[in-house]
Amino acid sequence: MLKRMDPDNTEALRAFLEGRMADSDPAILAQTAAILDAVRREGDKALFAYTKQFDQVELNSLQASEEEIDAACARADASLIADLQEAAANITAYHEQQKYQGYHLEKEDGVYLGQRVLPLARVGVYVPGGRAAYPSTVLMNVLPAKIAGVKEIIMVTPPDREGTIPPVIAAAAKVAGVTAIYKVGGAQAIAALAYGTATIPQVDKIVGPGNAYVACAKRLVFGRVDIDMVAGPSEILVIADANADPKAAAADLISQAEHDPLACSILLTTEEAFAEQVQEELKIQSARLPRRAIIEQSLANYGTLMVCRDLDQCIAIANQVAPEHLELMIADADERLPQVRNAGSVFLGYTTCESIGDYFGGTNHVLPTNGTARFASPLSCDDFIKRSSYLHYSAAALRRDGEKIMNIARHEGLDGHANAVKVRLDHE
Amino acid sequence: MLKRMDPDNTEALRAFLEGRMADSDPAILAQTAAILDAVRREGDKALFAYTKQFDQVELNSLQASEEEIDAACARADASLIADLQEAAANITAYHEQQKYQGYHLEKEDGVYLGQRVLPLARVGVYVPGGRAAYPSTVLMNVLPAKIAGVKEIIMVTPPDREGTIPPVIAAAAKVAGVTAIYKVGGAQAIAALAYGTATIPQVDKIVGPGNAYVACAKRLVFGRVDIDMVAGPSEILVIADANADPKAAAADLISQAEHDPLACSILLTTEEAFAEQVQEELKIQSARLPRRAIIEQSLANYGTLMVCRDLDQCIAIANQVAPEHLELMIADADERLPQVRNAGSVFLGYTTCESIGDYFGGTNHVLPTNGTARFASPLSCDDFIKRSSYLHYSAAALRRDGEKIMNIARHEGLDGHANAVKVRLDHE
Repeated sequence: MLKRMDPDNTEALRAFLEGRMADSDPAILAQTAAILDAVRREGDKALFAYTKQFDQVELNSLQASEEEIDAACARADASLIADLQEAAANITAYHEQQKYQGYHLEKEDGVYLGQRVLPLARVGVYVPGGRAAYPSTVLMNVLPAKIAGVKEIIMVTPPDREGTIPPVIAAAAKVAGVTAIYKVGGAQAIAALAYGTATIPQVDKIVGPGNAYVACAKRLVFGRVDIDMVAGPSEILVIADANADPKAAAADLISQAEHDPLACSILLTTEEAFAEQVQEELKIQSARLPRRAIIEQSLANYGTLMVCRDLDQCIAIANQVAPEHLELMIADADERLPQVRNAGSVFLGYTTCESIGDYFGGTNHVLPTNGTARFASPLSCDDFIKRSSYLHYSAAALRRDGEKIMNIARHEGLDGHANAVKVRLDHE
Repeated sequence: MLKRMDPDNTEALRAFLEGRMADSDPAILAQTAAILDAVRREGDKALFAYTKQFDQVELNSLQASEEEIDAACARADASLIADLQEAAANITAYHEQQKYQGYHLEKEDGVYLGQRVLPLARVGVYVPGGRAAYPSTVLMNVLPAKIAGVKEIIMVTPPDREGTIPPVIAAAAKVAGVTAIYKVGGAQAIAALAYGTATIPQVDKIVGPGNAYVACAKRLVFGRVDIDMVAGPSEILVIADANADPKAAAADLISQAEHDPLACSILLTTEEAFAEQVQEELKIQSARLPRRAIIEQSLANYGTLMVCRDLDQCIAIANQVAPEHLELMIADADERLPQVRNAGSVFLGYTTCESIGDYFGGTNHVLPTNGTARFASPLSCDDFIKRSSYLHYSAAALRRDGEKIMNIARHEGLDGHANAVKVRLDHE
């Protein structure tokens, strides 16, 4: 079921992966722009109207009340809540290491300078509704913001047909500790967070996944507010040696494929026999799974197999692909890790399946997709802070350095910059 | 010359500043897209052709040779080189504090996880030509990349009419330590860095300022490569108390205004008399400066004055504006700094003019503009690294947590994710 590709032709692989990048749909763009405009002009009124139109429900209030949230939580599975709490503890322990400090430098003649690290004041988290209402998404987006020190974390999510929030989402929001929940979804929710309405406050940054309209709206409001990323199609790349279990490799390729027909599952191995065993296992396991149709479509479109010379070649190819998820199902995974230069998250050894990281292990599951791990990073506390620099020059230091500063300024033809130094030196 | 605005109506101020954001010009967009496409298809051939068309010069070679760079440096002013070297030392000392470390956590039952910090492999720095060929831009963009550990730093800059590099740019490139210089500018240079050509290698990130075509090209290639930001119109906000020197305040407002007719200079003060003195000084000083026309246009368009109740109000307004540059020309600047939540860079006290930071003090002059300091940061080493997480789960840990992971996965309807755990537990 995986398509064989030549490991010595990585250009073909890259072109194949890039082929997944769709051009933005002009119809979606036009409709999204109209929604943004309406929310900007009409505020809450537009939100109620779009919610009626798209979610088929007439709300009395956009904000979910405490009672409503508690009632939804009460309907959530108790074992799920307990497991989410344990997952949250693991995610918290991992992300707490990401608290950044500013610094302060003192120099001669009374010069000092430094950098402060400040949390964003208010962040919006988009949580999709319907079948894509994932409690793990809530934890992965909210907890890093909270740990970074963001005071207000606003969740938006489309209401169900009864005008309420799905129990799993309410439970995850409670575990993660959001400040407020608004029952609005789609591009209209992104507009509300970007511009603010009478009910929903404007935020500094919007994070979280969504459908094509949500993604398009995030792109359009970027600059006015910050956004996390516009996630592309996702991928897993599994490197397996002779001792790997073909059942496990197949299961992990499938766990990626079941997300989306555009998801890409790549197997790199040094063992021809192993490759064949995985192909067999893919058939057996996907036949048993509820999302069989998506899995088969995804594997048929984007499942890829390369039988490589050696592990060095496997890792070189992984670095070129820069996968979102990289599994090293090899004996010496730890020793090989430093060779990995481009990967969102790396899963080490035979027993570490990607789904541990998706839910429970502690690392973030919001990862750079489609080759952007070359330059982008997993979601982290760093996404919820900003830096601000400061500088103090004493009169003595300005006397010492003034001529040099004016010299550079004049070479750039910016005499006004030199003049700002000069009026101070003349003043003395 | 500064327009008075009501300090109690900050909405009006925000609307006024946002009015500077121009819609992207469809003609520029179309032309830029055509250039990107040509470079992608034709590579170096297109670069030579566009250089002939736009820079009116026929090059033999895109890359500047060692001899050519040395010859250009030899023509640079010796005092300028010395001052740039001292500036580079200050910039280096400040940015070396920004080296981030990864971390590693060991947990029970053989679980370990962590985050690695890796420098980007290859970065492109765009340096404008002509009158905007600023050596300080070279230092501010190249040095943080170098300190972050980027191995290859590729500079692109348009050639002059003789087909060579301006001496000040060559000198700054030598001081900063770029890997290679290519003589190509405009959207075609951005295209070359984003796609790669036979001569110019593809990079992971593009930084540096440029004209409307360069900015548009950066927007269009974003996602394929990373970019720093698309800089908007810039601003200074000066808060001055009764002891500030009106000459100095006027000079600093002018130093911002001389950049660009869209630049915005805002004065907030508690002293009516001081405000009037600054207005007088603005007239006197701008009349003496070579860029008088730009300064007067900028001040007339976007020069703003608010006489405020007290310093608390001044700082509250500054936090709403989130200025690129904030000067605290007040007695207790240090004590007030913690009140400042939104500012790219803060200049503390009467003697610290913004131009010290532009050139020499050590902080970075690439700053978030037009209110984006609410969520964005000065350029730093952090812009030239990426993070990558890793996770290891032992068989024992998977036995311990497997049921919990499968429980969450199944609640999300992703049985393939649960299956990846199950095949491993069954295997034991």
